[in-house]
Amino acid sequence: MTITRVSHADLVAESAVQVRSAIRSGRYDGHTAGLAAGKLQCNLAILPERYALDFLRFCQRNPKPCPLVGVGDSGDPTLPTLGHDIDIRTDVPRYRVFRDGRLTDEVTDISGDWADDLVTVALGCSFTFENALVRNGVPVRHLETGKNVPMYRSNIALAPAGIFSGDMVVTMRPIPAHLVDQAKEISRRYPQAHGAPIAVGDPAQIGIADLASPDWGDAVEIRSGEVPVYWACGVTPQNVLLQAALPICITHAPGHMLIADVAEDAETTILTNTRTNKETTS
Amino acid sequence: MTITRVSHADLVAESAVQVRSAIRSGRYDGHTAGLAAGKLQCNLAILPERYALDFLRFCQRNPKPCPLVGVGDSGDPTLPTLGHDIDIRTDVPRYRVFRDGRLTDEVTDISGDWADDLVTVALGCSFTFENALVRNGVPVRHLETGKNVPMYRSNIALAPAGIFSGDMVVTMRPIPAHLVDQAKEISRRYPQAHGAPIAVGDPAQIGIADLASPDWGDAVEIRSGEVPVYWACGVTPQNVLLQAALPICITHAPGHMLIADVAEDAETTILTNTRTNKETTS
Repeated sequence: MTITRVSHADLVAESAVQVRSAIRSGRYDGHTAGLAAGKLQCNLAILPERYALDFLRFCQRNPKPCPLVGVGDSGDPTLPTLGHDIDIRTDVPRYRVFRDGRLTDEVTDISGDWADDLVTVALGCSFTFENALVRNGVPVRHLETGKNVPMYRSNIALAPAGIFSGDMVVTMRPIPAHLVDQAKEISRRYPQAHGAPIAVGDPAQIGIADLASPDWGDAVEIRSGEVPVYWACGVTPQNVLLQAALPICITHAPGHMLIADVAEDAETTILTNTRTNKETTS
Repeated sequence: MTITRVSHADLVAESAVQVRSAIRSGRYDGHTAGLAAGKLQCNLAILPERYALDFLRFCQRNPKPCPLVGVGDSGDPTLPTLGHDIDIRTDVPRYRVFRDGRLTDEVTDISGDWADDLVTVALGCSFTFENALVRNGVPVRHLETGKNVPMYRSNIALAPAGIFSGDMVVTMRPIPAHLVDQAKEISRRYPQAHGAPIAVGDPAQIGIADLASPDWGDAVEIRSGEVPVYWACGVTPQNVLLQAALPICITHAPGHMLIADVAEDAETTILTNTRTNKETTS
């Protein structure tokens, strides 16, 4: 049987469940920006159970770059608090498999790599607050120009936990000076998605030498009257995991996220119907 | 040497560091309500490392009753993300020690019970949003009348993790009908302290038979024009830990909390100076 592939445009009006279904069946393996509008999208880190306690401590201590939104049971590929039918082995469009700190595979299905001791950790991502900025009239340059957000290694030390430590990676968005306070206030409402900016203005204050030379992503123009604004970035935990050189670690490929059924503006990242009211649902 | 004891009134204008110092030195072992105004106070759960991963998963999945605000390293009594000099063995006024699910001791120092495999978990508490309600003109009955907040077992099932499961415990505060929306909006701003209410109105909807007979705390009067409003309660994790019957588990005694150096309205519960900027502090 041949699989009928679908495009990003085919999926743009579909629900989270339908998009995950297209990904699971092999019909779609592209990026997830703009899909399942209003639903939380997640960065992914899958790692062996013996490192999971320290990694959860690391995320708790560094909530701006590592906003914890879901954790699976050991060996269990479902994530019932994030979505009704999620199978983390198949529901992300594209995965990166790292062994001993080196990228060994980029794949669309990790069923063959799954093991009883693996723990899935889902972290919030910047799509959430970027959507809110745009919705509230704050322009986001890299989205307007079809580029990837510029990302930089900063000199902001992370709070360590076990083998996990390092410096924070930040993103930069140029914001018109008169909209900076609004951008701060809007993004602060999304603690599950990096929250308020880490810094505003001079890149040297956080150890960035040259905004024109990002460490990842694309440089973007800073126009007259605009101020560079820096947010904590989800590449931080990926970078820290890479440096920790675990025997195995699986992440999403950049831009190819897990789409949850949780609304991105929900009070918590937990599907409320996982807390069934036993008496009144009968 | 005799220890000069101090009273609650003696400490009410002191800083968090000073209050912890009085507690540590044995000069104070009373309740912490109203002390170190503006600082985060925390519920406490100390448990063996082998249960910590599941307990952190449990807290992540039940963020309203179990808002995770700090986690220690295994065997380490400090909590540098919550306070500059915290020693969790001595800095809480009164502890409860449970063995195999039974209360065996209520003590003011757990140095003798401390062990290399113990992990400290700190959770946000309702003092934070109650302070905000009062500050914003929303009356809180049990505070006005010098009572303990009424707490009830609900029928709201918690999302389980490993051996940890059960139903949510809730608190009830009668709120004038015209202030209910304001109370919701104010408390929602404190996700680190139970957030917005779980339910409003009829107690039967969440399995409570009689508001006049709370399971813990004191009954309070519901006056004409007032509506009962229910919040998730920090007794939930204590109850779940008790039912799990761990070989050892240590909690704070009710009302006798850990006082952090973190501001209760901070964006995160992490002291920012734990993320030292290596280049610019030289």
